[in-house]
Amino acid sequence: MPRITEARRNAQRARILDAALTCFDRNGFHRTTMQDIVSESELSPGAIYGYFDSKVAIVEAVGAERHQLERELLAEALHSADPIAGMITFVKRYFAWLGDSRELRSRRVAVQVWAEALHDTRMRASVDAGLAPLPEIVRAIRGAKRRKRVPSTVNPEGLARVLLALIQGFVLQQAWQSDVDINGYRDTVLAMLESSLARVPSGPRVFRKNRVSKRASGPVTPG
Amino acid sequence: MPRITEARRNAQRARILDAALTCFDRNGFHRTTMQDIVSESELSPGAIYGYFDSKVAIVEAVGAERHQLERELLAEALHSADPIAGMITFVKRYFAWLGDSRELRSRRVAVQVWAEALHDTRMRASVDAGLAPLPEIVRAIRGAKRRKRVPSTVNPEGLARVLLALIQGFVLQQAWQSDVDINGYRDTVLAMLESSLARVPSGPRVFRKNRVSKRASGPVTPG
Repeated sequence: MPRITEARRNAQRARILDAALTCFDRNGFHRTTMQDIVSESELSPGAIYGYFDSKVAIVEAVGAERHQLERELLAEALHSADPIAGMITFVKRYFAWLGDSRELRSRRVAVQVWAEALHDTRMRASVDAGLAPLPEIVRAIRGAKRRKRVPSTVNPEGLARVLLALIQGFVLQQAWQSDVDINGYRDTVLAMLESSLARVPSGPRVFRKNRVSKRASGPVTPG
Repeated sequence: MPRITEARRNAQRARILDAALTCFDRNGFHRTTMQDIVSESELSPGAIYGYFDSKVAIVEAVGAERHQLERELLAEALHSADPIAGMITFVKRYFAWLGDSRELRSRRVAVQVWAEALHDTRMRASVDAGLAPLPEIVRAIRGAKRRKRVPSTVNPEGLARVLLALIQGFVLQQAWQSDVDINGYRDTVLAMLESSLARVPSGPRVFRKNRVSKRASGPVTPG
């Protein structure tokens, strides 16, 4: 019995979140009432309040699910032996995720949360939870710099925030115009990251040459 | 007389916009009433309605002023003989502007407009007016590609949208955390643009060499 109950609970909860996102996306967070969500979900009002006490609680739950997925994607990137390859894989997976139509709906609601976070402490806490991995990304870039895997000129905080902005800006543009060319955008981001992190001025290039010549036992053929 | 009247009109109008931005920033667009703006401006209600019939009209006016400045900054960049130098100058000027504390307040309100634009046609029209120069930027990048001033691999639409996202993402991050290191961010953007647009694979490099040797009448000294 408890297992069936839990499965049903999860299904009901998912149904409420889905209905809420539909309402928030259709009419906006402010213009949506809990009654609208009840109607959309086709559940009883009592059932809804058993899961969420308010619209904000629903937004928090949606944010928490997204942040969990973001942390999983990030963890792989941050523990990759090759930081640039890790970053590139992260960007590819993240944009594959953003290309999903259900995710697009959820992100249009996220844009509303971004604005609400300027004046609502619970919304702000949700945004802050999403920003929480930033220091870890900065530390990882700093470590990659120390190990000379990225150019010495890289500003770790600047790069982490630029990466974040490249996602945020796209989410915003896609929220307004759902037909934005996501692949063209993603490939531009990838090309920029690769050219600015891999093909570098003198420092790291010299380093890479040294590494090659140390590894090679015989004479290195040119070209 | 008419000159004095016009100067006074402009001053009153600016005072209303200033008061409205203060209110929108402090309490949010939705929670601000026209009466709040009247009180903040210390003008009479009649005076305010002589300029703006609603909160949306005020937001439209603020947007129109910003878009005018953006077009001026862009025009210089787009007509620059060197497209990369033009882009770099644009980014530097844009971020100098974003570093201004009054502009920061105005941008925090803009983040609210971004969200409102998803459900309000007048707000959306204001956002669309801000996006209107995008096709012109795309055309300029396409032209620079044809003249081999940027790498042949550049995706003009992708690059234009990435540039936009780098501004939007920063505006958002700064709206949440006003102490973000703006110079570190700007310099990261500039380094990325320079490395991905200037220091390119073979094509453009060969082109540049050709140009130098055509110009030089005598033998070219190495280094």
